[in-house]
Amino acid sequence: MAELFAAVEIIAAKRDKHELTNDQIDWVVDAYTRGVVADEQMSALLMAILLNGMNSREISRWTDAMINSGERMEWSALDRPTVDKHSTGGVGDKITLPLAPLVAACGAAVPQLSGRGLGHTGGTLDKLESIPGWRASLSNAEMLKVLQDTGAVICAAGAGLAPADKKLYALRDVTATVEAIPLIASSIMSKKIAEGTGALVLDVKTGSGAFMSDPERARTLARTMVELGTRAGVKTLALVTAMDVPLGLTAGNALEVRESVEVLAGGGPADIVELTVILAREMLQAAGVKNTLDPVDALKNGQAMDHWRRMISAQGGNPDAPLPLATENHVVVAEQDGELIAMDAMKVGVAAWRLGAGRSRQGEKVQAGAGIEMHAKPGEMVKAGQKIFTLHTDESDRFERALEALDGALRISNTGEKVERLPLIVDRIEG
Amino acid sequence: MAELFAAVEIIAAKRDKHELTNDQIDWVVDAYTRGVVADEQMSALLMAILLNGMNSREISRWTDAMINSGERMEWSALDRPTVDKHSTGGVGDKITLPLAPLVAACGAAVPQLSGRGLGHTGGTLDKLESIPGWRASLSNAEMLKVLQDTGAVICAAGAGLAPADKKLYALRDVTATVEAIPLIASSIMSKKIAEGTGALVLDVKTGSGAFMSDPERARTLARTMVELGTRAGVKTLALVTAMDVPLGLTAGNALEVRESVEVLAGGGPADIVELTVILAREMLQAAGVKNTLDPVDALKNGQAMDHWRRMISAQGGNPDAPLPLATENHVVVAEQDGELIAMDAMKVGVAAWRLGAGRSRQGEKVQAGAGIEMHAKPGEMVKAGQKIFTLHTDESDRFERALEALDGALRISNTGEKVERLPLIVDRIEG
Repeated sequence: MAELFAAVEIIAAKRDKHELTNDQIDWVVDAYTRGVVADEQMSALLMAILLNGMNSREISRWTDAMINSGERMEWSALDRPTVDKHSTGGVGDKITLPLAPLVAACGAAVPQLSGRGLGHTGGTLDKLESIPGWRASLSNAEMLKVLQDTGAVICAAGAGLAPADKKLYALRDVTATVEAIPLIASSIMSKKIAEGTGALVLDVKTGSGAFMSDPERARTLARTMVELGTRAGVKTLALVTAMDVPLGLTAGNALEVRESVEVLAGGGPADIVELTVILAREMLQAAGVKNTLDPVDALKNGQAMDHWRRMISAQGGNPDAPLPLATENHVVVAEQDGELIAMDAMKVGVAAWRLGAGRSRQGEKVQAGAGIEMHAKPGEMVKAGQKIFTLHTDESDRFERALEALDGALRISNTGEKVERLPLIVDRIEG
Repeated sequence: MAELFAAVEIIAAKRDKHELTNDQIDWVVDAYTRGVVADEQMSALLMAILLNGMNSREISRWTDAMINSGERMEWSALDRPTVDKHSTGGVGDKITLPLAPLVAACGAAVPQLSGRGLGHTGGTLDKLESIPGWRASLSNAEMLKVLQDTGAVICAAGAGLAPADKKLYALRDVTATVEAIPLIASSIMSKKIAEGTGALVLDVKTGSGAFMSDPERARTLARTMVELGTRAGVKTLALVTAMDVPLGLTAGNALEVRESVEVLAGGGPADIVELTVILAREMLQAAGVKNTLDPVDALKNGQAMDHWRRMISAQGGNPDAPLPLATENHVVVAEQDGELIAMDAMKVGVAAWRLGAGRSRQGEKVQAGAGIEMHAKPGEMVKAGQKIFTLHTDESDRFERALEALDGALRISNTGEKVERLPLIVDRIEG
């Protein structure tokens, strides 16, 4: 059959700042998935989209075309409403780990398809895989069973879900076309809509350690995604939250699981607990779950921990097994007395990545035990010689480049200078 | 050996409107030629260049990098100065055919590496290949011999000349990145500089039938190329010339050879003769050839024709063999009495292309006899029923789409409306 369009005409239209028609978008996404539009044609189109933009109709249609490239899951067999959370990624952002079982404990079902890390932020699946026995790949039937039995499931998206997005994502990564709001928004939302969740809370990170360091761009991304979710019939809202300083006191796979378990046990760092509870309340409200256990109580009374243990066990993990530890460590101390006024999230993230917690190419293995522990956070008084970071890795030759990344990450002042940091919740955007 | 750069960083730099460094340009052009930078990465970079531009240093370095990807020819063994001409392509533009032997007759050597047509403008090699026996591919040694013996050679560029440009040109064609002045200028000039000509006259076409229909963009392209040639030590100047109306009275391969031979015999259409003579004088002056035969005399006294016959024969062609004729023809007549005030060059070019004179994919065969004869030109009075076009093709089912292309190509007026057309020479730009 003759193809409806020539790819070169569609590229030229966007190059010349025209709107793409619905038919052009449907065709080009489908034809790219089928291999009729070549990688070099799609990457030219992606660069034209990045530089010339898409309006909201185009973004919405592009998202629909990616959803339609694969299957759409649905959870009507469940006795509870579904709600999911997505974070755009930050350093030390392990919130999904305590959050999913916590929301399950409070009465909603959380069907989370998650990803692996690429770059300086970790991936939820990488973190969970540091738990002995735990596996990320489930069939759709297994996913439904875990969700039904435990109220929460976190697993890898199967090949059938938005295959157009998978192919596009790999292409964007090597062609410097990741950072376009229309492409980021459609990529995230096509997966979340195809996943079949009834409600969705987005955590859009901003600040030095986030992909959208500029708060205004983070707001635009948040608004774009909320609009896409709402149009598709998913109750969607977004919080724009701080990522100028790492979240919690750990960055690294097993290190973050340990901290998440502390939170589930009723302890853990204050910022992690606060953000987890805020997101849990938003999710329960978005899912329409009322008059139920409050998340703070579910953390205190052990029910969140119960759901965690059941969720991990259901996917083959042993929640009681000791977590892997890295074999080597290196301590960084404060150089002077004073108040710790800044800790750069990006620099900490890059250091953890270089220690082996992250990957620089798809498919690369990560170290379960690698990463960084933080012993102080901005706002605290420190003494010269006091431990600030412990660096962990299995390969001691990684310390040098990790320490280079940490150069300038800390600022300690004894002149009464004020700590400058973003509020934890920068903005809230509803449909 | 580790590569100097990551392609994605270079793409991101141009995406973010930064200047590329000399090292980045050298590396990316070389690495693309070697296959280290993938097509999908280069096409994203090309789109970023098209939309964000390059400054004159970047264009110059990009051109040098393409030259350095292959061999550089040189003609110091010759007893005459070398000079070449390049046209950006127009409908009915067969000027190279009479011009090269004419300039040779007047005392300069013309080493022309030429191309095939793609799109609505014909290619010089396609035209010459309609001469029985004539071959476009010569070794460097054969090329030198023809040049030495006849003063002019027109042949295909070998694989060793600017291979980076060959690869880039094919990529630009399928990714809607042809129309960027930095890429057009560097593509043309890398080949002309590598060709080793001592002087160069550029014929930059403007008007409806040209790639640069806007005269201001044509001027910018001309200035950019003159600057590139001058920097590289090639005496370069450019004429911006009219392409709102087809040149001469024919568009098509053998049809244009026939018209060229008429010019060499001292006849032919006035616009072809005028432009050929103007370009010949510019070329001779640029080459520093003085006190020689004037081109007008060389056309009249048969010396230009002599050089043509020797040049064609030296490449296996029989200058006395009858030229191919298409088997089918169709006449288009004037619909009313009046003055012919417009004949759209683009529409005539597309019609000739659809008749079989051009190709829509690289490697496609063209018909030698296909094309269009024009029996009147703007400024002439015509009568209803008078022949305006004769369409030629070997396949009569091509007439319908060719006639569609000609729809609206002509305007005949009897209200005293003035002919509006560009002057033949729109501008002259020197280094």
